[in-house]
Amino acid sequence: MNTFGRILRLTTFGESHGPAIGGVLDGFPAGLDLDLQQVQQALDHRNPSQAVIGSGRQETDQVEFLSGIRQGKSLGSPIAFLIRNRDARSEDYAVLEHAFRPGHADDTWQAKYGIRDYRGGGRASARETAVRVAGGALARQLLAGIGLRIYAYASRIGEICLEKPFDQLDKHRIYEYPSRCPDAVADKAMLECLQRIRQEGDSIGGVVECRVTGMPKGLGEPVYDKLTARLASAMMSINAARGFEIGRGFEAARMKGSEHNDLWNTDGTTCRNLCGGVRGGISTGEDLVFRVAFKPIPTIAREQALLVESETLSGKAEGMTIEKASLPGRHDVCCVPRAVSVVEAMTALVLADMYLLNSCSRGDWPED
Amino acid sequence: MNTFGRILRLTTFGESHGPAIGGVLDGFPAGLDLDLQQVQQALDHRNPSQAVIGSGRQETDQVEFLSGIRQGKSLGSPIAFLIRNRDARSEDYAVLEHAFRPGHADDTWQAKYGIRDYRGGGRASARETAVRVAGGALARQLLAGIGLRIYAYASRIGEICLEKPFDQLDKHRIYEYPSRCPDAVADKAMLECLQRIRQEGDSIGGVVECRVTGMPKGLGEPVYDKLTARLASAMMSINAARGFEIGRGFEAARMKGSEHNDLWNTDGTTCRNLCGGVRGGISTGEDLVFRVAFKPIPTIAREQALLVESETLSGKAEGMTIEKASLPGRHDVCCVPRAVSVVEAMTALVLADMYLLNSCSRGDWPED
Amino acid sequence: MNTFGRILRLTTFGESHGPAIGGVLDGFPAGLDLDLQQVQQALDHRNPSQAVIGSGRQETDQVEFLSGIRQGKSLGSPIAFLIRNRDARSEDYAVLEHAFRPGHADDTWQAKYGIRDYRGGGRASARETAVRVAGGALARQLLAGIGLRIYAYASRIGEICLEKPFDQLDKHRIYEYPSRCPDAVADKAMLECLQRIRQEGDSIGGVVECRVTGMPKGLGEPVYDKLTARLASAMMSINAARGFEIGRGFEAARMKGSEHNDLWNTDGTTCRNLCGGVRGGISTGEDLVFRVAFKPIPTIAREQALLVESETLSGKAEGMTIEKASLPGRHDVCCVPRAVSVVEAMTALVLADMYLLNSCSRGDWPED
Amino acid sequence: MNTFGRILRLTTFGESHGPAIGGVLDGFPAGLDLDLQQVQQALDHRNPSQAVIGSGRQETDQVEFLSGIRQGKSLGSPIAFLIRNRDARSEDYAVLEHAFRPGHADDTWQAKYGIRDYRGGGRASARETAVRVAGGALARQLLAGIGLRIYAYASRIGEICLEKPFDQLDKHRIYEYPSRCPDAVADKAMLECLQRIRQEGDSIGGVVECRVTGMPKGLGEPVYDKLTARLASAMMSINAARGFEIGRGFEAARMKGSEHNDLWNTDGTTCRNLCGGVRGGISTGEDLVFRVAFKPIPTIAREQALLVESETLSGKAEGMTIEKASLPGRHDVCCVPRAVSVVEAMTALVLADMYLLNSCSRGDWPED
Repeated sequence: MNTFGRILRLTTFGESHGPAIGGVLDGFPAGLDLDLQQVQQALDHRNPSQAVIGSGRQETDQVEFLSGIRQGKSLGSPIAFLIRNRDARSEDYAVLEHAFRPGHADDTWQAKYGIRDYRGGGRASARETAVRVAGGALARQLLAGIGLRIYAYASRIGEICLEKPFDQLDKHRIYEYPSRCPDAVADKAMLECLQRIRQEGDSIGGVVECRVTGMPKGLGEPVYDKLTARLASAMMSINAARGFEIGRGFEAARMKGSEHNDLWNTDGTTCRNLCGGVRGGISTGEDLVFRVAFKPIPTIAREQALLVESETLSGKAEGMTIEKASLPGRHDVCCVPRAVSVVEAMTALVLADMYLLNSCSRGDWPED
Repeated sequence: MNTFGRILRLTTFGESHGPAIGGVLDGFPAGLDLDLQQVQQALDHRNPSQAVIGSGRQETDQVEFLSGIRQGKSLGSPIAFLIRNRDARSEDYAVLEHAFRPGHADDTWQAKYGIRDYRGGGRASARETAVRVAGGALARQLLAGIGLRIYAYASRIGEICLEKPFDQLDKHRIYEYPSRCPDAVADKAMLECLQRIRQEGDSIGGVVECRVTGMPKGLGEPVYDKLTARLASAMMSINAARGFEIGRGFEAARMKGSEHNDLWNTDGTTCRNLCGGVRGGISTGEDLVFRVAFKPIPTIAREQALLVESETLSGKAEGMTIEKASLPGRHDVCCVPRAVSVVEAMTALVLADMYLLNSCSRGDWPED
Repeated sequence: MNTFGRILRLTTFGESHGPAIGGVLDGFPAGLDLDLQQVQQALDHRNPSQAVIGSGRQETDQVEFLSGIRQGKSLGSPIAFLIRNRDARSEDYAVLEHAFRPGHADDTWQAKYGIRDYRGGGRASARETAVRVAGGALARQLLAGIGLRIYAYASRIGEICLEKPFDQLDKHRIYEYPSRCPDAVADKAMLECLQRIRQEGDSIGGVVECRVTGMPKGLGEPVYDKLTARLASAMMSINAARGFEIGRGFEAARMKGSEHNDLWNTDGTTCRNLCGGVRGGISTGEDLVFRVAFKPIPTIAREQALLVESETLSGKAEGMTIEKASLPGRHDVCCVPRAVSVVEAMTALVLADMYLLNSCSRGDWPED
Repeated sequence: MNTFGRILRLTTFGESHGPAIGGVLDGFPAGLDLDLQQVQQALDHRNPSQAVIGSGRQETDQVEFLSGIRQGKSLGSPIAFLIRNRDARSEDYAVLEHAFRPGHADDTWQAKYGIRDYRGGGRASARETAVRVAGGALARQLLAGIGLRIYAYASRIGEICLEKPFDQLDKHRIYEYPSRCPDAVADKAMLECLQRIRQEGDSIGGVVECRVTGMPKGLGEPVYDKLTARLASAMMSINAARGFEIGRGFEAARMKGSEHNDLWNTDGTTCRNLCGGVRGGISTGEDLVFRVAFKPIPTIAREQALLVESETLSGKAEGMTIEKASLPGRHDVCCVPRAVSVVEAMTALVLADMYLLNSCSRGDWPED
């Protein structure tokens, strides 16, 4: 269950404060040229300017490749990589050994496994997403070979919403904008919002939008691995994700068929791509457009109420109390700027996987 | 890819106008008493009153069980069942052999496979969801044994929105309301809306909300099979689904951490269950609450523009034209009343699967 | 667990004396011409001349296709089919409700599931293999398109062993030989052996050999889905299989490297193909050669000792007794003539699956 | 395809001469005490006394754990570990860049992937099995908790065959015998054989037998994941494996039903356990008994003929030649002493996985 994908499969491991996090990307086709600097760069992009939204944790996230690549080419064998955890201040978390934070996975993880690594959230920490970013950066190179480009960006932070249409965005320089919103006006407003929230000792939610250009037609596997289903699964597996929608999404629930139906052009494209590039779970060849909603990060600077296990002498929990405390750790005020990298990575993993799977869908291969 | 689930796996088959649709439910535990009448009833519930929103297609959807059950008990072997297609008027669809409807999967399916059964949408038809309903009705019986109850209902049709809180709904009689909205006022308004839309020759979108009570704590498999990810995958695989959200969903993107964080009660529950029963991808034991947005059904009574392949004498497509036509077939004006059954069924399949998987998560079994 | 395959997946269902057995073949590529008569013929081949080795059960095994095919072409959607059970004499088996036969799965199935359909072995019956034969007959048509041919045949029945080399066999008419050994001399000897065993009221074991010509190079997925591993898994899943070997198999354990190493020809083939067409788990392009050992069928005409549960009035088992009895049912004296069909079918399923998977192994597809 | 298992899944990576080999064991239940020294010891056991059968490669195979364990307990999250490659003399292998060794995977790997890491066999090297041994050592600890013990040992090397019955073997000290045959007489004979073969500059095949005591009844998943099928798949995925048999195996092909049928004891066990502990693919609770045949290691000290690609100036292969050469690298003369560790490990992985899966087979869990 720590493996994602059907043909191209990313298996990940690692706790936030353990020795390392890492992954194994299996099923990557052989013979592709890989630029490993792009993987490191993707990891760097995931760590936004600390001045703006940072957690104060200064992980350099240096990736080391262990297998599957030789002289810059994929071998067809599993590509393993790891990132050592360096700047973990585990002592910050001692208070959490017997306390459950609000809005966190502390209590559910404990209930499920009867044990947890409470330091920094352990396996439940969003630190795990760094591995997705590294795996996705490899998948993206595979997709670049067929002309496919992925653009994820912040489209909302709290009440600040990106209004400009996609074709007016500075889409090739997304990671130069601290908020990851590639529009100077919206970026500025989002940063101000984040600054204000930080000063309030609070956190804030947001939305990441993703658009994919150069899509092939025919990706997605009916009926349970529709492209929409695979994307939704990928996105909702990201920490703090609370919603997924494609095309007009929830707005479509208020629309009439005569409004929502895509009108044809004679080349088989549509006038407005209201379906967001997927019909019947299969890609139409037009741009993929979807959004992911993220809740506010639950750890905030303000004092909050913890649920605390009252231990008896024998070490067994005996009832619970609620205690106010300032929570330990160094956390972002909004996950969106980091999540942009993760949405991009998961999109790449889904699409590369669906691309490989699709090669098996038609029987005209014997003639090849 | 026509199989859903990890331990409890539903494999489905069948085209809308082929001989039959059906499924194989594998991994169902042995020795459970099964009420097969409940399966038939669930299928009946999926076919709403034709007077209101029906397609005019009068499938009785009589299910026949072929294996895996003996003398009312599950054997542990695969439970296979089929539903014969009876009332298919395939001749209605001859026009579609070389034409692609707007908003439908006609062209994407053709692009993917190079061939399609155009009659009634073939495998892409929502008729496939009847099989999910039958499979889900079996899974639901497994869950009933642990006290878990699933309530799916229409919460929006177009602009008509259910406003009442869950505990004021007539939740045990959902299927007695034609709209599947268990509130007399909202049901009436929704029916009027549907009537109006039908008269306009149009269709309309909507939202299905689902609440699950009696949830065990600990369901969901980190990190890629989080309960949110599995539910999203299940829901977005339903025909016409365009969005999924849990708890506060997209609204959470506008909230602050101090607002959104669940506040603890001393019994480990929360005051408002804003997270919708899932934290860190694992069930909290509180009610599961999520919503699925559906687009308007693309086939409408009004004339619409089709994309038509212009054939040459040799039978190869040569360019496309756009032609106005009244579309064939008998279709609902809104998918929500049917989708309620399907959301319920897919929820049952996900939860039963996660329940079985969860039995492997802890190592205290040797002492059992 | 009733599903076999990675891309091409056969899911099967059905108890020996239930309403029907059947299967769903998913992942079959679209657009292939299918000759459904060949499927029926394969089922007929699985039922050898009753005069010789038959069980007396006269199933016609008429296959009905339910989906996934239209106008003789595969649609890319699941191909479902079923075979109704007609000639089941379930009353023969009443004695087995509380008795376990020697050498059968009665007790293990009961232990695992706490319940079983004891009539004719239920799901554990070799009747299930008819579904494999039907699925394999479809896979074989896919493989025929790339020039691949599968020849399975009896190579041993008891002490009678086929000695002739493959190229002297009447390999295109295997199913015309009652024993399924395509050599007139060996066939005659095997039939005499079977006749003798039948007269003794006994049964006998045997070996099926399989050779595949026209193999592509490169099939098999390192490291856990090596072609050898997939074939072994497929063969050992057949009822009564007790051993699998490839190339020189167990004989290789007595050989030296200087003897066993394949010597090269300058075209990259080898002089003697001692490896049986697989090196490092990947096909070499030379003929695949493997063998499967089958134990004697446990049900014999002679009286045997059953393990009988002694029931108390309350219906709970209370101790066991051993009782002599003539076992019910109509059974073959040797499974090999039927097993030839099943080995052929499982080989086709493995190779078609590995062929499809292999299309994803190299990254030169973007240029295609 | 570099992942083995259904619930307990081992994903492995690494080339023989790359930076490291390693694995990720997912699905391991939480809360189990783990003795990591046992894992290191298992790795040490896989490296037999170099004086006897060693390759001369002095890997210490020091395992480092990266995740999934804290304070000696499993966390329920993936357990990742790696082994750095230290003593690789890659320059030995330069000759193989354009040459294919007899009996090796060089040419098949090249054909499949169009690229290979030729140094030491790359991913195809038996070095990969060290990772299986580490993973298996963890699985074995899980099984020890339910009283299950695995004994693998050399039962044949060339013509030297272990004749003593299992209960007369020194089974608790297998790894103190250099040949891994726990009988002083047979061990001595095997060592002499290995010495003689070494002096001849040759290699030799052999057989590993495995016996498992303390088996629970009911493991194995009908119909395609029968215990026999899973074991065969596991064993045939080991480098150089050529055959698998259970119970009487190939000998059963010559037996009659009246001979081969297990005769009952009144406690439900059998007199002779001829079925090797599996009936109908499900464990009987009696000892599991199976054998794996291994071919002689293809690399031998004597000069052998290589298949050499003749390159043109443009770097493209143009025809092949056969050239005699002494092959590079340091190799064992027989794989059996190492393979004993690997058979033990793969058995543990299969049985732990089947044990976990089996917990889902019965529906009486709601009452738990």
